[in-house]
Amino acid sequence: MAKKLTAQADDFSAWYNEVIAKAELADNAPTRGCMVIRPYGFALWENMVAELDRMFKDTGHVNAYFPLLIPDSFFQKEAEHVEGFSPECAVVTHGGGKKLEENLMVRPTSETIIADMYARWIQSYRDLPLLINQWANVFRWELRPRAFLRTTEFLWQEGHTAHATAEEAEEETLRILDIYRSFAEDYMAIPVLYGPKTDAEKFPGALQTYAIEGMMKDGKALQMGTSHNLGQNFSRAFNIDFQTRDGSREYVYQTSWGMSTRTVGAIIMAHGDDRGLVLPPRLAPHQVVVIPIAKSDEEKTVVREAVDRLLESLEGVRVKVDDREQFGLGWKFTEWETKGVPLRVELGPRDIASGQAVVVRRDTGEKEFVPLESLGGRVGDLLETVQRDMFQRALTFRESRSLEIQERDSFVTAANGDGGFIHAHWCGDPACEAAIKEETRNTIRCVPMHWDAVSGACAYCGGPSERMVAYAQAY
Amino acid sequence: MAKKLTAQADDFSAWYNEVIAKAELADNAPTRGCMVIRPYGFALWENMVAELDRMFKDTGHVNAYFPLLIPDSFFQKEAEHVEGFSPECAVVTHGGGKKLEENLMVRPTSETIIADMYARWIQSYRDLPLLINQWANVFRWELRPRAFLRTTEFLWQEGHTAHATAEEAEEETLRILDIYRSFAEDYMAIPVLYGPKTDAEKFPGALQTYAIEGMMKDGKALQMGTSHNLGQNFSRAFNIDFQTRDGSREYVYQTSWGMSTRTVGAIIMAHGDDRGLVLPPRLAPHQVVVIPIAKSDEEKTVVREAVDRLLESLEGVRVKVDDREQFGLGWKFTEWETKGVPLRVELGPRDIASGQAVVVRRDTGEKEFVPLESLGGRVGDLLETVQRDMFQRALTFRESRSLEIQERDSFVTAANGDGGFIHAHWCGDPACEAAIKEETRNTIRCVPMHWDAVSGACAYCGGPSERMVAYAQAY
Repeated sequence: MAKKLTAQADDFSAWYNEVIAKAELADNAPTRGCMVIRPYGFALWENMVAELDRMFKDTGHVNAYFPLLIPDSFFQKEAEHVEGFSPECAVVTHGGGKKLEENLMVRPTSETIIADMYARWIQSYRDLPLLINQWANVFRWELRPRAFLRTTEFLWQEGHTAHATAEEAEEETLRILDIYRSFAEDYMAIPVLYGPKTDAEKFPGALQTYAIEGMMKDGKALQMGTSHNLGQNFSRAFNIDFQTRDGSREYVYQTSWGMSTRTVGAIIMAHGDDRGLVLPPRLAPHQVVVIPIAKSDEEKTVVREAVDRLLESLEGVRVKVDDREQFGLGWKFTEWETKGVPLRVELGPRDIASGQAVVVRRDTGEKEFVPLESLGGRVGDLLETVQRDMFQRALTFRESRSLEIQERDSFVTAANGDGGFIHAHWCGDPACEAAIKEETRNTIRCVPMHWDAVSGACAYCGGPSERMVAYAQAY
Repeated sequence: MAKKLTAQADDFSAWYNEVIAKAELADNAPTRGCMVIRPYGFALWENMVAELDRMFKDTGHVNAYFPLLIPDSFFQKEAEHVEGFSPECAVVTHGGGKKLEENLMVRPTSETIIADMYARWIQSYRDLPLLINQWANVFRWELRPRAFLRTTEFLWQEGHTAHATAEEAEEETLRILDIYRSFAEDYMAIPVLYGPKTDAEKFPGALQTYAIEGMMKDGKALQMGTSHNLGQNFSRAFNIDFQTRDGSREYVYQTSWGMSTRTVGAIIMAHGDDRGLVLPPRLAPHQVVVIPIAKSDEEKTVVREAVDRLLESLEGVRVKVDDREQFGLGWKFTEWETKGVPLRVELGPRDIASGQAVVVRRDTGEKEFVPLESLGGRVGDLLETVQRDMFQRALTFRESRSLEIQERDSFVTAANGDGGFIHAHWCGDPACEAAIKEETRNTIRCVPMHWDAVSGACAYCGGPSERMVAYAQAY
């Protein structure tokens, strides 16, 4: 804990790796490309899972579990899908001591095996909509792994729904996109751009992919969740048809959508500072750390009693009391700063004598003296304030790193610069998109739906454009 | 739903498969030996996970996540472990389009990869105890798969702890055994025998395995959870040593323990009857199903308002309202009986007029008229009564199928009979144990710790014995 973190401004990537290690979020695993999610990192993920799961259930979704290993032949049934995922798969060729007749792929995503089951379960319009989510581990071979951002194995949820009409499938795709937006903004405190991806960036097998895109503190974009309208691509391939109300048969319309442990990386990079993590209160494993300050046995007794009363007043708040004797105060302050706990409460004999405690905000470093009798209420208020301020600060940062550009030279210069979102017109031509990527490493992150549609000229080729898109360098 | 289930007495195994299908708990997967856990079955598992997870956290455990794929060389480090698990493993030989330099095993259990991490994390006695649990999917090749009981892939939790002394590791092993016992008895409503396994039945790599054993309605025993004292077997193999308080170095003492989706099978088989599932209220996805009875639009309005008021009075209870129009009453009654919902509340215009509702218990079929104003309280009481009665009924059944036997001929006859626990003396000789298994298919399920230690003579060989053990045919 003693050694300082590399400054973000000096080497953001080194800072990222160091903060993950020092905050004990994750560790490199002995399995290549994989990470171990350590208890502190997992507690953060658990809080995210709990909130997202509640949001899915509140909108009528249920959870289920499908097999990890998918027969190779299943992938072959949807052409874009096999092309997109087969090269990334881990392949099981032996089991139970024997060579298998058919190879099994460790799931990179579960559209195919779920489609096979849906074909059995769905007979009639009465069976629709089918709104299933799965929390699972998935595997995609990564050449350049980064903890949370790109790991060969990661944890995620994958929703898979089936509907009687194209309209309902599109509604569902957008409903989930809005859940993702709301989760990112209201819980992760990260403002996002949201809207459809271009064809070049869509999910293999989807009609249309929608995404939420956040900005990290190095000015790069991070895709934080995707919602796909699959149309009838998989239902045709897997023969998922149903009897309609009027007695005819039709293929179902499907969606799939996912958010993963990558979001932990988003929280680290959107809020962290040179002293470590800064966690949004709604998701932080510990919302408050209480540090008792006492030397003599007599002081310890007094402080312990005051801490007990304080804990009662903080019911419903996730509180950690750090009364470890083997560490000094400075060590503890640094540790919990590194771990990004939103509020630190210090309580010593002098504080108790004057009927107050010291409360320190992690996000601003602001310190205040709070009367003990009003501490419960003040902590609750402060947690909400910190949550709101973190979102506002991230929004202000994003706006400060967003440029609207109309003209080619400025566009290329900015796109080759030090990051940020570029709002610019695009003609819609994939060739233009590819040339921009080649020249500037910028990709179209999404076509923000929440921006007004204004026509103009493509910033790169000058061709006619119906609306602006958001460019950025991305993780 | 129309076709009746096979009677348990006619063919228990057929009944089991049918009830899983009809109650929509699970389905066979296209991947050999695997199942799909359907939403209703998964909701039951989710409730079990929530309670167990709370019990682990209340005793100081935290969750983490370790990789699915384990390098082959890790298995080779602990001799008994590799012998026990290697033949059952699914093996990844290719990844990212290439043959791997070292094969990766899909985890059958995670002692080895976790031991590798613990060797990095544990330096000093200050790092101990380390109390980590993981919720995960695991893979063990099964030749004769049965849904929930033996599937190639299953879901479970695996706890892995490290301690400074042998005593602490033994305490932890027993603490967890008691959590498992309490979970089985207080939540699953299944009485269990608990105690150490014999050496022949212990976990590969453990010093000592403890288990909880329940009795199913066909008289067979089901192992429902195991807690292992690993001693220093893995810490020596993986070099997990630490600096003690007095400055010397020592290997840590470890435990591991697991409970899996197999427990869903236990609930099915310990409580189900010829009409389907009977779920314990504390774990049931729906504790109460409300069935509105109305024909005319006017009646529907009246009933709907009454249902709304009723739902308010049932706050905190997991309630499902079945107001589907396409199904008749008989169909709905049968469906929810099959699905084992503990209480059914029927509410029609006549009931409302007389200020009451009909409440029917799934476990006994008892019907009572409950005044609407006291329905909330009565439902709460009934749920507790059903929970308690289910446990008592399972206990009475187990006692009726348990025999204490002293003498060889009676022992062999009973052991070859139609199931049940046999309480008998055992000399402690593995050869005797093996001969009994060969002759009667009975195994020693455990050496119940809660039975008084009384010496006697081995029921099979007549040799001296210090205490009785529990024999049974087992799943």
